[in-house]
Amino acid sequence: MLNKSKNVETFLGCDANYEDARIVLYGAPFDSTTSYRPGTRFASRMMRAESYGLETYSPYQDLDLEDAAVFDGGDLELCFGDTQKALDDIHDFAADILKDNKLPLLIGGEHLVSLPAIQAVYEKYPDLCVIHFDAHTDLRDDYLGAKLSHASVIRRVWDFVGDGRIWQFGIRSGERAEFYWAKEHTHLQKFNFDGLENAVAQLKGKPVYLTIDLDVLDPSCFPGTGTPEAGGVTFMQLFNAMLSIIQGCQVVGCDLVELSPMLDASGASTATALKVLREMLLGLEKPFIKPVQI
Amino acid sequence: MLNKSKNVETFLGCDANYEDARIVLYGAPFDSTTSYRPGTRFASRMMRAESYGLETYSPYQDLDLEDAAVFDGGDLELCFGDTQKALDDIHDFAADILKDNKLPLLIGGEHLVSLPAIQAVYEKYPDLCVIHFDAHTDLRDDYLGAKLSHASVIRRVWDFVGDGRIWQFGIRSGERAEFYWAKEHTHLQKFNFDGLENAVAQLKGKPVYLTIDLDVLDPSCFPGTGTPEAGGVTFMQLFNAMLSIIQGCQVVGCDLVELSPMLDASGASTATALKVLREMLLGLEKPFIKPVQI
Amino acid sequence: MLNKSKNVETFLGCDANYEDARIVLYGAPFDSTTSYRPGTRFASRMMRAESYGLETYSPYQDLDLEDAAVFDGGDLELCFGDTQKALDDIHDFAADILKDNKLPLLIGGEHLVSLPAIQAVYEKYPDLCVIHFDAHTDLRDDYLGAKLSHASVIRRVWDFVGDGRIWQFGIRSGERAEFYWAKEHTHLQKFNFDGLENAVAQLKGKPVYLTIDLDVLDPSCFPGTGTPEAGGVTFMQLFNAMLSIIQGCQVVGCDLVELSPMLDASGASTATALKVLREMLLGLEKPFIKPVQI
Amino acid sequence: MLNKSKNVETFLGCDANYEDARIVLYGAPFDSTTSYRPGTRFASRMMRAESYGLETYSPYQDLDLEDAAVFDGGDLELCFGDTQKALDDIHDFAADILKDNKLPLLIGGEHLVSLPAIQAVYEKYPDLCVIHFDAHTDLRDDYLGAKLSHASVIRRVWDFVGDGRIWQFGIRSGERAEFYWAKEHTHLQKFNFDGLENAVAQLKGKPVYLTIDLDVLDPSCFPGTGTPEAGGVTFMQLFNAMLSIIQGCQVVGCDLVELSPMLDASGASTATALKVLREMLLGLEKPFIKPVQI
Amino acid sequence: MLNKSKNVETFLGCDANYEDARIVLYGAPFDSTTSYRPGTRFASRMMRAESYGLETYSPYQDLDLEDAAVFDGGDLELCFGDTQKALDDIHDFAADILKDNKLPLLIGGEHLVSLPAIQAVYEKYPDLCVIHFDAHTDLRDDYLGAKLSHASVIRRVWDFVGDGRIWQFGIRSGERAEFYWAKEHTHLQKFNFDGLENAVAQLKGKPVYLTIDLDVLDPSCFPGTGTPEAGGVTFMQLFNAMLSIIQGCQVVGCDLVELSPMLDASGASTATALKVLREMLLGLEKPFIKPVQI
Amino acid sequence: MLNKSKNVETFLGCDANYEDARIVLYGAPFDSTTSYRPGTRFASRMMRAESYGLETYSPYQDLDLEDAAVFDGGDLELCFGDTQKALDDIHDFAADILKDNKLPLLIGGEHLVSLPAIQAVYEKYPDLCVIHFDAHTDLRDDYLGAKLSHASVIRRVWDFVGDGRIWQFGIRSGERAEFYWAKEHTHLQKFNFDGLENAVAQLKGKPVYLTIDLDVLDPSCFPGTGTPEAGGVTFMQLFNAMLSIIQGCQVVGCDLVELSPMLDASGASTATALKVLREMLLGLEKPFIKPVQI
Repeated sequence: MLNKSKNVETFLGCDANYEDARIVLYGAPFDSTTSYRPGTRFASRMMRAESYGLETYSPYQDLDLEDAAVFDGGDLELCFGDTQKALDDIHDFAADILKDNKLPLLIGGEHLVSLPAIQAVYEKYPDLCVIHFDAHTDLRDDYLGAKLSHASVIRRVWDFVGDGRIWQFGIRSGERAEFYWAKEHTHLQKFNFDGLENAVAQLKGKPVYLTIDLDVLDPSCFPGTGTPEAGGVTFMQLFNAMLSIIQGCQVVGCDLVELSPMLDASGASTATALKVLREMLLGLEKPFIKPVQI
Repeated sequence: MLNKSKNVETFLGCDANYEDARIVLYGAPFDSTTSYRPGTRFASRMMRAESYGLETYSPYQDLDLEDAAVFDGGDLELCFGDTQKALDDIHDFAADILKDNKLPLLIGGEHLVSLPAIQAVYEKYPDLCVIHFDAHTDLRDDYLGAKLSHASVIRRVWDFVGDGRIWQFGIRSGERAEFYWAKEHTHLQKFNFDGLENAVAQLKGKPVYLTIDLDVLDPSCFPGTGTPEAGGVTFMQLFNAMLSIIQGCQVVGCDLVELSPMLDASGASTATALKVLREMLLGLEKPFIKPVQI
Repeated sequence: MLNKSKNVETFLGCDANYEDARIVLYGAPFDSTTSYRPGTRFASRMMRAESYGLETYSPYQDLDLEDAAVFDGGDLELCFGDTQKALDDIHDFAADILKDNKLPLLIGGEHLVSLPAIQAVYEKYPDLCVIHFDAHTDLRDDYLGAKLSHASVIRRVWDFVGDGRIWQFGIRSGERAEFYWAKEHTHLQKFNFDGLENAVAQLKGKPVYLTIDLDVLDPSCFPGTGTPEAGGVTFMQLFNAMLSIIQGCQVVGCDLVELSPMLDASGASTATALKVLREMLLGLEKPFIKPVQI
Repeated sequence: MLNKSKNVETFLGCDANYEDARIVLYGAPFDSTTSYRPGTRFASRMMRAESYGLETYSPYQDLDLEDAAVFDGGDLELCFGDTQKALDDIHDFAADILKDNKLPLLIGGEHLVSLPAIQAVYEKYPDLCVIHFDAHTDLRDDYLGAKLSHASVIRRVWDFVGDGRIWQFGIRSGERAEFYWAKEHTHLQKFNFDGLENAVAQLKGKPVYLTIDLDVLDPSCFPGTGTPEAGGVTFMQLFNAMLSIIQGCQVVGCDLVELSPMLDASGASTATALKVLREMLLGLEKPFIKPVQI
Repeated sequence: MLNKSKNVETFLGCDANYEDARIVLYGAPFDSTTSYRPGTRFASRMMRAESYGLETYSPYQDLDLEDAAVFDGGDLELCFGDTQKALDDIHDFAADILKDNKLPLLIGGEHLVSLPAIQAVYEKYPDLCVIHFDAHTDLRDDYLGAKLSHASVIRRVWDFVGDGRIWQFGIRSGERAEFYWAKEHTHLQKFNFDGLENAVAQLKGKPVYLTIDLDVLDPSCFPGTGTPEAGGVTFMQLFNAMLSIIQGCQVVGCDLVELSPMLDASGASTATALKVLREMLLGLEKPFIKPVQI
Repeated sequence: MLNKSKNVETFLGCDANYEDARIVLYGAPFDSTTSYRPGTRFASRMMRAESYGLETYSPYQDLDLEDAAVFDGGDLELCFGDTQKALDDIHDFAADILKDNKLPLLIGGEHLVSLPAIQAVYEKYPDLCVIHFDAHTDLRDDYLGAKLSHASVIRRVWDFVGDGRIWQFGIRSGERAEFYWAKEHTHLQKFNFDGLENAVAQLKGKPVYLTIDLDVLDPSCFPGTGTPEAGGVTFMQLFNAMLSIIQGCQVVGCDLVELSPMLDASGASTATALKVLREMLLGLEKPFIKPVQI
């Protein structure tokens, strides 16, 4: 009855050993630059705890996490108040995962945590393209003078990947200057996923990082986030778009950010984030799972 | 001014005497086997109180609860911690209603409370078929060893109704084994109500029990439930599906379960549950309501 | 660094001086007749505070509030418990704005606050027509004996505008008598915006007051209101309907009512109300904004 | 098993018939003049529902509600938005109770509901004295012009009982003018119950109305109220003060007001209000309860 | 940087290996028999997560958890809906700990989880005495027919320890019959800790189990529990009483039960429970910690 | 009726012009280094809005804010994610106030915002002493490597004021090393205000900065803070201690920090913070207010 080893907590069904895993999941509980309502720091911890309300099996993909090989690396202990140091720690963690030829899957935290993760992936894959699902452009050059801000994260990514390497979908909020800047420098699709199939076709064979700010979802299905924006996509639209990319591109890194559990009184947003995570993991693992014989 | 009789509380518009009523409404405030977030025990009480924010008139069906004959039997006092005893009490209450040739309409509580209600109806109608709206299969043979569990309720119903007598719609969560088992034993429609018209056609003339786990609704319109599952149906889809059944089949018993008011910070889920209840009552009473002359 | 003038608080981007403004925004924090769940009194205050999470730019209309000329008159200090006095104060405030040939835009409060605002506009434009978006008919002649009630507001408007001058959309709740009364006296469209284009065509060139009870939105996108009603419209449907009217008619007054921040645990309803407000302001200001040269 | 009479809901242990009862409990769910945070309208309803978490037995007084004879008259249906009409209804209800020689015990609602109840008692007992427990003076002559306001209720009582007939305890908030006015017209004890024994001695044999605004309690033990004021009394201090009065005076009417359940996230304030109510009822009934023989 | 072993989660400072530990902490997330507001099932999980807001050092005892040897065994996976089975699992877990000569420290869950833990300790120490801190007597013989209930737990303990072996403190709620029964069978101190020193003196040298229902605390300092009872003790009173026992008796088992995180909106109750736990652990470990040399 | 000047929002009763004011109030909405539960950034905004539930008159001091001369400078717009820049902005704002010979009174935000405010005051008064009320030592040299942290703020103050210039009261949480370090460098009083009179006597005539972390209050009266610590002081104890200092010393700067409105479901903590603020302002203004003649 009595388990004499220490209490292990992982996301449901993510109990592979590090050595056996192809995907390494980890949390970056950081939200120091969030200018409005903080709280995304609690997302990974809450998702891990609540994952036990989920099933490992997906009736959408007819796949089961029990057949996948995912290691949960826990949460990084990040320094609040020293943004650069926190980002450096995320970068080094992701780089270590990549060195072992595993795919890093980051759970935010605010969107800024994606920056060092993308940087680390870019260092391994210099021809990296980035697909960005979000309600917000995240293209400001700075926010009240700070270059490192949740509102600037994709602009900072552009600093190293450069023009034409970023595809943005679902965008419905930003400053005028950001939308106009995007016309020159990124592929920005307002409001929805129109043009996604075309993007996937163009990106075929290239290494792709997929960064999902969950506020791309409409607040009706995802109220639990700091800056909810009406007019977003449904869960099924997000699911289909995400699968298109996973099946059509070579995804080499990805993340889910901006769940804010303190704003999720019913728990439905956390449950939805977990379902997106499960389907993402299963989509990535599909080529490696043997069909079930029944 | 002063009312000298005791304070009576019923669902809005459900103020018929027992003798005159065709439908008997009652609450089963029980959630002891809920493995995740409890609280459905408060649903019937909260629905009764909040029903005064609703209108008795339906602009959808152009019918008014004031013309219906519904008795509200209040809430059963059920024993927490002794599941079998609680279920027995529900069974006996439903059986008494049926003996008087009235239709029992149960408000949960967790889904397990449907089991004794269906059992009682089955004892009167041995050729009973069951239509099941839910996000979850509820087909586990046991849950951590317990045969009587919210996760097993439809499996327990199958124990007595047998193969081919259960139609499931909207299902989008469960273990792999449950989905595979369903292929042999129930009619299971994943995700939506496709095939409902066909089912109604087949069930014409047969006694039908309709059990609605409100989490069949998408969390966007029904966050107030213990295990919200993204990708569900809209209120209007549920409304239309429910009316199809009520109009096309001989419904002899029904229930609404799994509202969890503690998770319904805005009250919108409770209001939606009440609207489903009103339309269900009006649909059932329609043949007995004389047209209004204006 | 130090600002030695007093602390000014306005809705984001609504910082014109009174003299320069074409639109005057003001709050009427009153909910005394709310029969069910009060709290709309906090809407304007909360919207003002939360507006700093919004952007001034609309990617929908490609317009920016920074180019608009809107004055924020703050919130009226209204007397709770003396309904007539509160309504008189709103009336006089709106009349003053109209005298200066500015458009009054009212933020409720409960829906009853629209009555004196519409009255003031009607006094200036005796051929006024009213377009009413709402889940509820609001056509009761009285509520528990009170003629001045949130449930009677449109009936009171009819008292002076008369038959055929009120267009109602999205209505899905009310007493039977209200729906039947509407057949004789107003244009009432149940459930949705069907027929709106036709109404706009008929109203071309006539002065129009647009009153939006935000509960016309489905509770999935707007749970934060006192009497949420399932089966409503989406944000995009509301946005499109609102723009049709603003572009097709001569809108001379308008309001947004019934946000209840205490019921908006996630803040998503407040954010949505703000987005509706921004688009309303930009739509009204569009003819006066010079195109940006980039 | 099946109860064929309508669903009766009373406060726990208050199930006497009207005829047999010495005390009549009733709720006045009204908060229209509340200038700050509304919600006391839900107090009586919530207290009734939550009373089932309480025991009928008091270990403090060694008495049991099962031996008391209390009738629960339910909640009045009061008109929001027409203050005078609502107060008239409360007055008439209380007057009816008094005519039958029963003691009216009112559950608010905001404090203004005490006014008509005290008026009705005063009409029967013209030498009535009033004992007032509160954090606030409630002695304004008007509030934004309204004479009938929660902030004026004791001033309005003074209008008919006159100088020296009102004893106030626990007061720690008000305008300067109110405190200065009180020096001339009432007995006002700041902060605590000092002098209560003396008051009781003076009031011996005279009819007394006891009105308890529950915010007299410190917010630490009673946060669930609209205007919490630090520096209040403890539950045991309130309990002892209340018992002193009940045992030392001839209490002919009383009330408990200003519980606001929407502000009571934990439920502890509602539970405390119920405990105060139980002890009040038992104290009043003590002379009529026969000792238990065990 | 990268930790390649699985994510371990323990209470702050409780990171000893099983072999080295003198105390084994474990959670029993069970609340199936809770008749009122459920949710204590989340207590151990939430306490573990929130413990990172606590310090390991106690300025009260000048001791540090870093010097203690405590193993955190995680949470048992208990069957909801089959009470006996859940209790058996707790019993076996505690028995295993005792077999290894370690002290079992249980975190509830509802109070019923203490029963099997006390039973296991009793089997090892047949002369066991029980000290019980609680607001409630917990002495019912059954609750709605169920012998195994949170309201009966101490009565069930009496079934095997017998008369005069149970000391109860802080009790302020129960049925009359329970208080009268206690006079014959237990040492029951109403309201406070009077007589505790005397009890400690009598129990000197005897094995003692200390069971703390945290609702013994006043709701002002501990609102986050299912049945808050006004008139309780302060944190410092509880702390001092607990230390008296730990220092004066031979404590061989203990527990903390009835924290309900869903009712703890501010987190203060969880933080207080953690502080009680820290001081309990440090008090128990004090004889084994070497003084710090600074 | 119509106010044509922009909407001004100040703390209740703090409506002096800058030139006339002796005290300048301002908010520093910053919480980026908060390691646990963020949200103090909303404190000043929420306090300003909620201040309208307070009275301007203090029955404790018999003084009225209407007779005081306080300017409300609004909230600074601080950069999240760049701690040094945010602190610099606070410093410069405070320095400007001091240059004009006014007293700066800062509303946090997290405790770190006190650092630049104290620094600015120290630059003017090099013999400054600091009195610190808090539950926590705040004496860490760094927190996860960051020197600028809420947990290090008093240590950073020590960096410039040096040994023996800091008096700490109410402290009941910290690392062992902090408590031991304090023995050499500060005057630290654990748990309460013992010794305060003595400190005041020693500090007579010296310039004093008073920094109040509101979590010095017991969580029973102040749950709305990020790291609540049981065993704190009552409101009246804090009030008396604060007045002792204001009356006995030459207070030249002060602050109130660590209210976290998101954790204050009932609003009682915000109301308490406001009452502390009112009494602080009145205490400071007392020498300048002429007695009222009545």
